[in-house]
Amino acid sequence: MAESTAPDRTPTRRGPDPRRRSERARTAILDAAAALMGEVGFARMTMEGIAARAGVGKQTIYRWWPSKAAVVLDVFQREAGGDSEPLPDTGDLAADLRTVLRATVDEYNTPETDRISRAFTAEVQHDEDFARAVTEDLLRPHMRAYKERLRSAREAGEISPDADLDVAVELLTGPLHHRWLLRTAPLTHDYVDVLVDLALRALRP
Amino acid sequence: MAESTAPDRTPTRRGPDPRRRSERARTAILDAAAALMGEVGFARMTMEGIAARAGVGKQTIYRWWPSKAAVVLDVFQREAGGDSEPLPDTGDLAADLRTVLRATVDEYNTPETDRISRAFTAEVQHDEDFARAVTEDLLRPHMRAYKERLRSAREAGEISPDADLDVAVELLTGPLHHRWLLRTAPLTHDYVDVLVDLALRALRP
Repeated sequence: MAESTAPDRTPTRRGPDPRRRSERARTAILDAAAALMGEVGFARMTMEGIAARAGVGKQTIYRWWPSKAAVVLDVFQREAGGDSEPLPDTGDLAADLRTVLRATVDEYNTPETDRISRAFTAEVQHDEDFARAVTEDLLRPHMRAYKERLRSAREAGEISPDADLDVAVELLTGPLHHRWLLRTAPLTHDYVDVLVDLALRALRP
Repeated sequence: MAESTAPDRTPTRRGPDPRRRSERARTAILDAAAALMGEVGFARMTMEGIAARAGVGKQTIYRWWPSKAAVVLDVFQREAGGDSEPLPDTGDLAADLRTVLRATVDEYNTPETDRISRAFTAEVQHDEDFARAVTEDLLRPHMRAYKERLRSAREAGEISPDADLDVAVELLTGPLHHRWLLRTAPLTHDYVDVLVDLALRALRP
């Protein structure tokens, strides 16, 4: 944002702070895109539609995002709570995995996140370019965070030295995602605990 | 099909055999529905559209299926090779799981099955009624077949007596489905073998 290099405005100056106005516009754009994803889906969504819904000009969107896919990826980053952070590392792998996967379950059980995640999942099936962006920008960093935590556990001797860490990540996240996606059973913390126990039985030395 | 109660027509009788004509109509309807699922998706597909594409009257479709969801479920049953059959039971759980999951991978790697499965996955996210039908009519019978095979393995002492069989099924199918759905890595027979080994380490007594 170019505005952020301007000196602070004094509170007595008339008119809104341009940085706060920018921030409000960004939020309105992301809110509009999130709503349209759920209502009309990615394919039928347009930059014009987002701009109209957000009450901004189309050029305001293009100032920050090159394409609607880029906007929608940011919607999802925001829903997912920002960029992929490293997993907690307390030295107890089972406890750390329970913490993270219970939080994931809580997110999936939030109607807004559920709605947007399902809209994303549907679009990933329809649109290969969008699928690639989602995989590279959202999913891989997320899976890498799991993998790093498992690597540290492997170094600490908590999991087998010859465990395939990519498959190990899928063993933890795949069943939970499957249950959420296909709505076969409720997602609960108890379920997470059973899953972590089973996966660690598979991975221990 | 009411026609099947009629006596066989002799080959000398003029005109097509009505049972064969019915069978051709059914096939044309399922082909049309499969094509439309991929092209316009479930939500925008109509019975009229299926009828026009199949070259039959709409009443011909209603003779066999009450709704477009019912037609589309039959498309998928056909793609999936009919109703859920029991898993093989040779007495060697690992070998049987490898056989079945390798066949699943081969199916996913078939462009036509991939296309229809992705169309289904997208629709399940959009439409809760369709989701329920898919879960109850396709997915649960499929998961039950795995569960029965695991139960027989548990009785044979191949897996732990206190293993949660529902979670065990997801441990086998979830990671593979995750990899297919999110296109994170290729689906190969080697991957299946690693996955089966890991899952059985988790489940063994």
